[in-house]
Amino acid sequence: MGDLIGTAVEGELVYLAPAEFQRIISAYLAPQCKAAIVADMCRLNALYMIARAGSGHIGSSFSSMDILSWLMLEELQLANDPADPENDIFFSSKGHDAPAYYSLLLATGRLPFDFIHQLRRLGGLPGHPDVRTPWIHANTGSLGMGISKAKGMLAAKKRGRAFVLTGDGEWQEGQGWESLISAANYGIDRLIVIVDHNKLQSDTFVSHVSDLGDLPAKFIAFGCHTQRIDGHDFSALEHALNACKEVKGQPHVIIADTIKGRGVSFMEHTSLDNDTDLYRFHSGAPDKAAYSEAVRELMTRLNAGLNAAGLNPLRLETVARPAAPVQVEAPQSLIPAYSRALVEAGTKHENLIALDADLVRDTGLIAFRERFPKRFVECGIAEQDMVSQAGGMALKGLLPVVHSFACFLSARPNEQIYNNATEDTHIVYVGSLAGVIPGGPGHSHQAVRDIAALKGIPGLVMLEPACEREVPLALNYCLEQHNRAAYLRLCSVPWPVSFSLPKDYTLKKGQGVALTAGRDAAIIAYGPIMLSNAMRAAQTLRTQGIYASVINHPWLNSVDTPWLSKLLSSVGALLTIDNHYLAGGQGETILATAAVAGLLQGKQVAQLGLTATPACGNPVEVLTHHGLDEVSITRSVRALLAQ
Amino acid sequence: MGDLIGTAVEGELVYLAPAEFQRIISAYLAPQCKAAIVADMCRLNALYMIARAGSGHIGSSFSSMDILSWLMLEELQLANDPADPENDIFFSSKGHDAPAYYSLLLATGRLPFDFIHQLRRLGGLPGHPDVRTPWIHANTGSLGMGISKAKGMLAAKKRGRAFVLTGDGEWQEGQGWESLISAANYGIDRLIVIVDHNKLQSDTFVSHVSDLGDLPAKFIAFGCHTQRIDGHDFSALEHALNACKEVKGQPHVIIADTIKGRGVSFMEHTSLDNDTDLYRFHSGAPDKAAYSEAVRELMTRLNAGLNAAGLNPLRLETVARPAAPVQVEAPQSLIPAYSRALVEAGTKHENLIALDADLVRDTGLIAFRERFPKRFVECGIAEQDMVSQAGGMALKGLLPVVHSFACFLSARPNEQIYNNATEDTHIVYVGSLAGVIPGGPGHSHQAVRDIAALKGIPGLVMLEPACEREVPLALNYCLEQHNRAAYLRLCSVPWPVSFSLPKDYTLKKGQGVALTAGRDAAIIAYGPIMLSNAMRAAQTLRTQGIYASVINHPWLNSVDTPWLSKLLSSVGALLTIDNHYLAGGQGETILATAAVAGLLQGKQVAQLGLTATPACGNPVEVLTHHGLDEVSITRSVRALLAQ
Repeated sequence: MGDLIGTAVEGELVYLAPAEFQRIISAYLAPQCKAAIVADMCRLNALYMIARAGSGHIGSSFSSMDILSWLMLEELQLANDPADPENDIFFSSKGHDAPAYYSLLLATGRLPFDFIHQLRRLGGLPGHPDVRTPWIHANTGSLGMGISKAKGMLAAKKRGRAFVLTGDGEWQEGQGWESLISAANYGIDRLIVIVDHNKLQSDTFVSHVSDLGDLPAKFIAFGCHTQRIDGHDFSALEHALNACKEVKGQPHVIIADTIKGRGVSFMEHTSLDNDTDLYRFHSGAPDKAAYSEAVRELMTRLNAGLNAAGLNPLRLETVARPAAPVQVEAPQSLIPAYSRALVEAGTKHENLIALDADLVRDTGLIAFRERFPKRFVECGIAEQDMVSQAGGMALKGLLPVVHSFACFLSARPNEQIYNNATEDTHIVYVGSLAGVIPGGPGHSHQAVRDIAALKGIPGLVMLEPACEREVPLALNYCLEQHNRAAYLRLCSVPWPVSFSLPKDYTLKKGQGVALTAGRDAAIIAYGPIMLSNAMRAAQTLRTQGIYASVINHPWLNSVDTPWLSKLLSSVGALLTIDNHYLAGGQGETILATAAVAGLLQGKQVAQLGLTATPACGNPVEVLTHHGLDEVSITRSVRALLAQ
Repeated sequence: MGDLIGTAVEGELVYLAPAEFQRIISAYLAPQCKAAIVADMCRLNALYMIARAGSGHIGSSFSSMDILSWLMLEELQLANDPADPENDIFFSSKGHDAPAYYSLLLATGRLPFDFIHQLRRLGGLPGHPDVRTPWIHANTGSLGMGISKAKGMLAAKKRGRAFVLTGDGEWQEGQGWESLISAANYGIDRLIVIVDHNKLQSDTFVSHVSDLGDLPAKFIAFGCHTQRIDGHDFSALEHALNACKEVKGQPHVIIADTIKGRGVSFMEHTSLDNDTDLYRFHSGAPDKAAYSEAVRELMTRLNAGLNAAGLNPLRLETVARPAAPVQVEAPQSLIPAYSRALVEAGTKHENLIALDADLVRDTGLIAFRERFPKRFVECGIAEQDMVSQAGGMALKGLLPVVHSFACFLSARPNEQIYNNATEDTHIVYVGSLAGVIPGGPGHSHQAVRDIAALKGIPGLVMLEPACEREVPLALNYCLEQHNRAAYLRLCSVPWPVSFSLPKDYTLKKGQGVALTAGRDAAIIAYGPIMLSNAMRAAQTLRTQGIYASVINHPWLNSVDTPWLSKLLSSVGALLTIDNHYLAGGQGETILATAAVAGLLQGKQVAQLGLTATPACGNPVEVLTHHGLDEVSITRSVRALLAQ
């Protein structure tokens, strides 16, 4: 075993094969003891999956693993067929802990074991749960929907119970409370909600972000049969679940106090030196040293436990660590560029106030918070409240800049953004993680409908910068040259940008800029990824004697007609590329504008963009799958000109 | 006075002029007594405004009137300038009670008195509050945003308090609870929330729709300083408001038990014979007899009170009742047609289940509920919960049909609809009150961005029927010929439809149908209003020698390219008309499709649709204002052909 751990240090990854799970599960052991061992075995496999995928949520997977292990081994009534109507239902509303649940499905033979190697890969196991995977009952990953969905399932299902695992930070979302009102009124006692109360959300303490106050009192006031237990105490879990069977006419809530990262000492949140440190294992993958040390700790405890139970030690499988993605030289990183631009804007605009919904690190707000602590508002996972607060601030003279991931910001507070816009106030919304890449987290996080969702809002201008240099230009446009709502769409993935903007480039509303010239076709796109792919396609086309102009058009919902007229008069064909669904994307706006202005006479026109729910996978897989890679763009231009 | 009331019976309307308010407000009276008299005087004026406008919310205006009267006369610290930073802020989060607040602003001279005649008229007082009206601090009308907005205002405002009036049904929305979490964490004691707990929402009891359970316990558990009082007892109000000044470090909630329709005996909800009767005075206008009787009761009580206080009786102003809108012969009513179609579909599809969010009457669900009580789910004002419940139902084999107003359904649960769609389930969403008409309720209720908001959802088909006959065709298409998400968009206003569908008409996805033929131009539109206007425009044009084809194209987000190709090959120009913002509407989809298919060669193209927040007003005012009336369409076609 020592050797195996040794090899891991040297770059191999290890996991436990099905036979080992069968051996332990069929062993004669006390249920609590067995569940604890299986939980640790699954921690090892979840860690393998995340390390192999290069990303995933360790902290939340580990905090919930003991609960999941007990549910899967001892509590859930499940036939062999996932569609059996007698089955109990289990799903995680937070969804971050998918690796934990996958590892238990793999351990119990409910998923083909080969999937263990396919986390966050095309055709594999998605980063967040998806119903196309057997035994996954609901698509989650956007918080707060779980109880509502479970109520619907129970309404459709005469038999069986529904177990919904939630996070704790998730209870900052209003929908959870909204969903409990009717759960209590209808007395849905087949519903068991388990709160994985690991005290942290994303990178820091729930109590620092938006404290939940007296959580048991809240659930009791909302009419729930409420219990609070140690979520790592299997006997307490058993007892609480049995109590749920006795209490009729009320939905059940079990608040399980857990430790984020539980099972590997240095990953446990309780190991933080002080509670202002950022927790490092919320998302992402462990580095090699951390991986190795975690494996060592898990295996040591596991084998000690097995030894005490008179069982043989575990046999690890080893595989080579997949080659790391080729390191790109000097990729451009828009989020740090935004971070700098916002601090600068804060210096300039004394009424600027930044709002965050529990994504302070991902949205680049740490520098602003440090510089202007009194002008930073952490709203928690409460996008509706955040956006309406911003509305109130703007009405009374502040200049709010509102942050979240684009997928959430454009959709969860969609009506609130519109309501603010009807007040004609000046608010800047900044949606990061925009577009189809990264594809690892899955479609709940791939923001490819935000342009459409916000399009029909009068006065709202939408911009997506293509490179670091364009970021402050875009932010400053929203702050200084526009006095109503603005939406700044940011790609979060560092990307090797294969173009540069003209030296004297400035933003003019609705006008694009040519990155390379050519008279055969114009390719209009935005953002670093599509423009880089278009640039490479143009290069390839040039070798084939086709000259395409690539236009960076950062204006997602506005086109300057004279500019477009001039552009189109100089080219024979037009291809638009959306890092977004075709429906409601930039391409539609450009084509409709061109049609009304009569600019399409004698032109061939085509559009690229998504037409189906985004696939989960690595960037190459996802871009190729959706026909947004360099090769597809090259092919589209050739086809266009061949018409 | 008796005479004046008599004339009202015979068709006149009455109100109280500013001088009468000045007289009473400056009189030497106990504050409680004065507030009660002013409240009743304002009830009379609110009733006048609603009767004159032909619609408005009496019940909610009257239940909150005593609270508003006390706040305005005794509690709020207000300078003469609405923008004074020292001012307290008051606004109503529910917004229904706008006539009550308007009447107090008029009574206290804070609004030009002439506005009393301009409720729900273009340039007048909007149906729901809008910040363009002096002393209105926030746009409301979509529920649950008030506390969030007030928190934002207080963050921006060093001095003064914020008073937010909420409904009780409004607490079914999750955002309210979401917003209290940080209000408590930040200890915002300048926030005073008053719940107008009138026990009814829309037409029936909150407790029947979605009972709020132990409301004080909920607010206490959410960290609020919570009091419960009789909302018609002025001394209790005074005492509770004083108590708020004493308690520091907590947001304040005053649950004010009130009576819906308070002040006119037969309008009070307590006068319902039993609690299953529908309450008649939630929205709409009183008929002549009810108006007259209400005036008589209010005036009798008022003058008795004044007499007891040694003051002269009130002098009423009378005006002629504005001519009723011309009665249209046999308008088409799509909601009743939908109601019938849904019952029929329910008979055919045993797994069909209808979900409602407290709009059972407006969305046409009463017949279904009566026929299939076990297949009807009342979700309360909880659209997110409703949509996610429908998602769970669909995953487990039911066929959910989900109802609300289009403005709310497309926006509030926007992310939830997308989440369901990523599960590829079959769910039908039915959004009524779609489009810019009626214009009376104002922009919170005018659904003119629902197409855009739902456009980028893969697999979702969107349909808007144009007449009664097309309603069951459209519903059945969604239920039987499409097996993923569908959005049925319904105009709620009975409308004189000036066309009929061909006898053998059936729906073919993406294909329109010509209602009248002409080779000069094709006008593509949808829904009863735009198509009727287009038909009348075509008639006018014909007299001018211009022959336009009017096409009913009920497919809001899909176009059949061969069909469009055939259509465009036969006409010289194309005009699309959206009952929606131009951005993200049907026109864009049609033009982008035509552009890609190369169908626009040699064609003049134009689009009509909204480009600014919809105006509030009567149908003629609003359609003309936005250039969507017959005259504007005629002008557009002529301009198009003159190019």
